[in-house]
Amino acid sequence: MRVIITGAAGFIGSHVAEMLHAERHSVLGIDDLSGGFVDNIPKGVTFEKRSITDELDGLFQKFKPEAVFHLAAYAAEGLSHHIPVFNYTNNVVGTANVLASAYRAGSRHFVFTSSIAAYGHPHSDKPFDEATPCVPCDPYGTAKLACEHHIRAGYDYHGGPAYTIFRPHNVFGSRQNISDPYRNVVGIYMARALENKPMPVFGDGSQTRSFSHIFSVAHAIAMAPFTGEARNQTFNIGGDEPMSVRDLAENIAREFGIKPNLEFQPARNEVMHAHCRHELARRVFPQAYARALDIRAGLKEMAAYVRSRPIPAATECPALLEITDHLPPSWSKRLAHRAKA
Amino acid sequence: MRVIITGAAGFIGSHVAEMLHAERHSVLGIDDLSGGFVDNIPKGVTFEKRSITDELDGLFQKFKPEAVFHLAAYAAEGLSHHIPVFNYTNNVVGTANVLASAYRAGSRHFVFTSSIAAYGHPHSDKPFDEATPCVPCDPYGTAKLACEHHIRAGYDYHGGPAYTIFRPHNVFGSRQNISDPYRNVVGIYMARALENKPMPVFGDGSQTRSFSHIFSVAHAIAMAPFTGEARNQTFNIGGDEPMSVRDLAENIAREFGIKPNLEFQPARNEVMHAHCRHELARRVFPQAYARALDIRAGLKEMAAYVRSRPIPAATECPALLEITDHLPPSWSKRLAHRAKA
Repeated sequence: MRVIITGAAGFIGSHVAEMLHAERHSVLGIDDLSGGFVDNIPKGVTFEKRSITDELDGLFQKFKPEAVFHLAAYAAEGLSHHIPVFNYTNNVVGTANVLASAYRAGSRHFVFTSSIAAYGHPHSDKPFDEATPCVPCDPYGTAKLACEHHIRAGYDYHGGPAYTIFRPHNVFGSRQNISDPYRNVVGIYMARALENKPMPVFGDGSQTRSFSHIFSVAHAIAMAPFTGEARNQTFNIGGDEPMSVRDLAENIAREFGIKPNLEFQPARNEVMHAHCRHELARRVFPQAYARALDIRAGLKEMAAYVRSRPIPAATECPALLEITDHLPPSWSKRLAHRAKA
Repeated sequence: MRVIITGAAGFIGSHVAEMLHAERHSVLGIDDLSGGFVDNIPKGVTFEKRSITDELDGLFQKFKPEAVFHLAAYAAEGLSHHIPVFNYTNNVVGTANVLASAYRAGSRHFVFTSSIAAYGHPHSDKPFDEATPCVPCDPYGTAKLACEHHIRAGYDYHGGPAYTIFRPHNVFGSRQNISDPYRNVVGIYMARALENKPMPVFGDGSQTRSFSHIFSVAHAIAMAPFTGEARNQTFNIGGDEPMSVRDLAENIAREFGIKPNLEFQPARNEVMHAHCRHELARRVFPQAYARALDIRAGLKEMAAYVRSRPIPAATECPALLEITDHLPPSWSKRLAHRAKA
């Protein structure tokens, strides 16, 4: 199959690209390199540096992808309150642009990574299943939910491409950018651990997440166009094992052979316990779940990767801050000079 | 109070501007004139030609509005399937831009017109109330729902401005643009009636709507910042009287003293019966409902306005078509030359 992957230089995208290339599909990767790295692109995958908000028809019409995996996003949920225009331009307008190019190029499958952020705050500790009503509580989750509605409505009206939507959560593993200060707590802690610096914890660190290792998540995503039951479906995807942020920091410190050194910061306005049910994904993607690593094994895989190379230079937010109020103090120093005039 | 109204040269915006000016508020109207007319701006209202996707801080910082009424939108629901990138740029990015400028200028109230389109297709004839889950079925409804989530999330995170969201439906009356072929069935039929031309009906015309006259809708919108119970609330707004599209055409023909001449066209993929409950709005805005005109009285008001002036030149869609498939045949002739290369 001929496939285009947006965000192919990113964390999830590069794993999906690798799996599809290994299965002998013809893969074209697109990325603007705002968060990913060219080195992440697997050998054998063609790469074009391009933003998803650029004109894409030239590429799509030439390559004629049968499936499009739209994984590119600026996925900094907490920061999205401070860059709303940038967030919607990238995450909604960009998605509409990619889908329109896919449609015009005659693609038959469209795979999209939404997010657990689409559910929002239900002020309940009950795990979300795919039927839980979505009430997003930040611009990032709002954008992802809008993309879901857009993709479904487009299928119902135009009759194609068929879609599979994933709502991954707290994915970590090799190739994750550990130098982005605004997202990926696992990466942030590993970067700190490498340099034996304190790990920042918002609140008391008792908030829990089901951190999910990349292999099984990427496997399910890659398989979607080849899986009949995934057609026009939406899936939570990720692990079921809850862990507090504090325990995560301690596990990472142990993995790196250092003493945990937690730096407590004021709590953010965030969900305390965000967990998903995965019955549907387990049933439809049993092979993906069969190869799942638990959190500790996953941390080991990622730590080995992280130790094997230099820490990348810090990735800065590509947008100017639109609203500077209520920034977490740990971010405001770094971002103060990047405010819109 | 100092207020800014976006879309002030438009139909709803100009009525809200007129009411607020009459109550001696200081009103600045903004409009890009893509669908509205300068002549709609009431005397005494300051006007700036500006798109909601432009940089707005200069205006907002100088005017320091206490309340912002964000009514500007490209509200062509059926056409939104064909101009998705344009739709999200105007209706989502534009809203995020206006809200950010309002926030930075210290505004205390933000009034937003969403739409009944946010509810989408429930495949049920039950009227929507504000608690009905929203599953939009087109890019326009998706955009409006995303704006609602964004506005609420912004209030919860940043603590202001307080918001009132309206979901109006099928509003008609004086100053509506009768020369826009893609929206406002009442306006389209009146323009046809004036010239004694056939009125296009999608399907058999048995689809029903509760056409809502502008006076009461605009009154509720204008009152929102002055109504304690409207703070941080979402309201359906409009009339309760269902009428089929076919009956509408016949009523308009009668009002213009001509024989109904219906031109039946293939059915569109649209909701058959879209109605809202208005208990909440009736309770919180009793004065607005007290002055409501029924459909026939409203048609009379609008017909008098329409007869009193020349038919405006046709308003063209400001966007190039992004997807030309599945256009209703009556639109495709007109739009064929406006397709993206």
